[in-house]
Amino acid sequence: MTEPLFGRLTLIGIGLIGSSIALAAKRHGLVSEISIQTRSKKTLERAIALGLGDTYSLDPAEAAKVADLIIVCVPVGASEEVAQQIAPSLKPGAIISDVGSVKSSVVQQMRPHLPNGIHFVPAHPIAGTEHSGPDAGFAELFENRWCILTPEEGTDKAAVDKLAAFWRAIGANVEVMSPEHHDLVLAITSHIPHLIAYNIVGTAADMEENVRQEVIKFSASGFRDFTRIAASDPTMWRDIFLHNKDAVLEMLGRFTEDLTSLQRAIRRGDGDTLFELFTRTRAIRRNILDAGQDTAVPDFGRTPAAKGHGTTEKNGA
Amino acid sequence: MTEPLFGRLTLIGIGLIGSSIALAAKRHGLVSEISIQTRSKKTLERAIALGLGDTYSLDPAEAAKVADLIIVCVPVGASEEVAQQIAPSLKPGAIISDVGSVKSSVVQQMRPHLPNGIHFVPAHPIAGTEHSGPDAGFAELFENRWCILTPEEGTDKAAVDKLAAFWRAIGANVEVMSPEHHDLVLAITSHIPHLIAYNIVGTAADMEENVRQEVIKFSASGFRDFTRIAASDPTMWRDIFLHNKDAVLEMLGRFTEDLTSLQRAIRRGDGDTLFELFTRTRAIRRNILDAGQDTAVPDFGRTPAAKGHGTTEKNGA
Repeated sequence: MTEPLFGRLTLIGIGLIGSSIALAAKRHGLVSEISIQTRSKKTLERAIALGLGDTYSLDPAEAAKVADLIIVCVPVGASEEVAQQIAPSLKPGAIISDVGSVKSSVVQQMRPHLPNGIHFVPAHPIAGTEHSGPDAGFAELFENRWCILTPEEGTDKAAVDKLAAFWRAIGANVEVMSPEHHDLVLAITSHIPHLIAYNIVGTAADMEENVRQEVIKFSASGFRDFTRIAASDPTMWRDIFLHNKDAVLEMLGRFTEDLTSLQRAIRRGDGDTLFELFTRTRAIRRNILDAGQDTAVPDFGRTPAAKGHGTTEKNGA
Repeated sequence: MTEPLFGRLTLIGIGLIGSSIALAAKRHGLVSEISIQTRSKKTLERAIALGLGDTYSLDPAEAAKVADLIIVCVPVGASEEVAQQIAPSLKPGAIISDVGSVKSSVVQQMRPHLPNGIHFVPAHPIAGTEHSGPDAGFAELFENRWCILTPEEGTDKAAVDKLAAFWRAIGANVEVMSPEHHDLVLAITSHIPHLIAYNIVGTAADMEENVRQEVIKFSASGFRDFTRIAASDPTMWRDIFLHNKDAVLEMLGRFTEDLTSLQRAIRRGDGDTLFELFTRTRAIRRNILDAGQDTAVPDFGRTPAAKGHGTTEKNGA
């Protein structure tokens, strides 16, 4: 164990991401104390039972007091309220960060409420499972995953470096970019895939009864992969779509144009157009394998991360 | 080992499915001899090098001669040509089957060419990976997977039972239904998910250069799961869409209507509609887990099947 990077770490919100940060920070000895806050009494009780922190509170202002690093781990739609609540009790020099999947909106929501003298470094660890709640967390969640930091220009470099060191210490690869660029890239790599998965599972759920039962029975043929994505936390994802509206609508427009063109090819029996696309997409898969972002083994490289939380799905909030 | 179910098994086509059938039939001692045919000299040489059969041929008529069970394992668009080629040499009493992902079209293509006195029992094993070619096969591919048989009314019951016994012996669960019902169910559980995956990977591939590189870099956020599906065999999937056109267009229409409605909800900031759908889709995932069609561990339950072919992606045809 090395010297802790921070004194008190306060986690506002203790779902999958918050609890995983707590477990990882503790395992690597990165902080001397962990303070946990959530507004749900039931969730706080689970956090206590799991021993995730050192002190616990239902009050964000109370929890944020004397903290050196505060990481807001709530659905992005709750960011402004949290910023308002914690602002009065922030210690000068503290680093305020978050884990939201959308960055421009979080900056817009939180920035106006934060006092001078603190360092605001928004972050997005690209890691997760379809499970949610404090029981779903595990210390290895961020290993070999990206964590994107989106500090405003002029943010204290030492603060950015210190937060980057924290994320690297729990296994993440850190990248810095603007909130706008982040939101565009994530719209196509994450938000649209989730929207489509939710949508097709919904379409299947609306099928006539005799087909619906068989959709479940024969789900192994492709559909099943979508149901896993479409089992992700509803509140978190509702907020993502509402708060990354422009980029999502832009990408959705492109997706729909392309799909309409495929539909036309099928209707006209134009096999060449289909074959050309299907060959091109195979090359993208090859690029992802070459970039080390997945393994050829068809378990999505998730096996190491899966240990210890394979039985928690029923606890999903 | 029990007494073999069949004398000579002939496989027309030796890709992922054909080679897996060969390996599984041999392992379980289900046939006394395996004859392999493919029209590609290069593929036939791989099959010989892998020792998948007992006799090998580039000529379908030659390979089909004296066979007791013939399984056609070619892209569905090649079904009619194969039927024409093998028809003259079929032995009376032989069972002719296939493995196509579309059934009505296969029946329409093959039936008119097959002589009286043989038993035509179309089949679709719902199993596969994104890998293709004879190197991709493995004996466990069909274990605990469904195999759907779609015999015409009036087909000899003993022949259907014997083919069902073959599939059960290599680990599959057998179900019998009409070709039309099969095609509708598979359109929503398999064909549309594949089409959507191909489409979104194509949309991403068409992004501006600076975004495209980052799509690969940050693919772990959801997109990666789609690239695996979109790496499936282009010829096979082109044929599926061309030959299950009606059901695919019908389901695509429903999908697009639903997606348009979601798009509208995002544009109007209607969080309730999004939340309601995202909650409903989570329940479907639960049903699939309850039905034993997947495990909660996020590796898609594929780990056992993955052994022995994790390094073959580069060999994909």
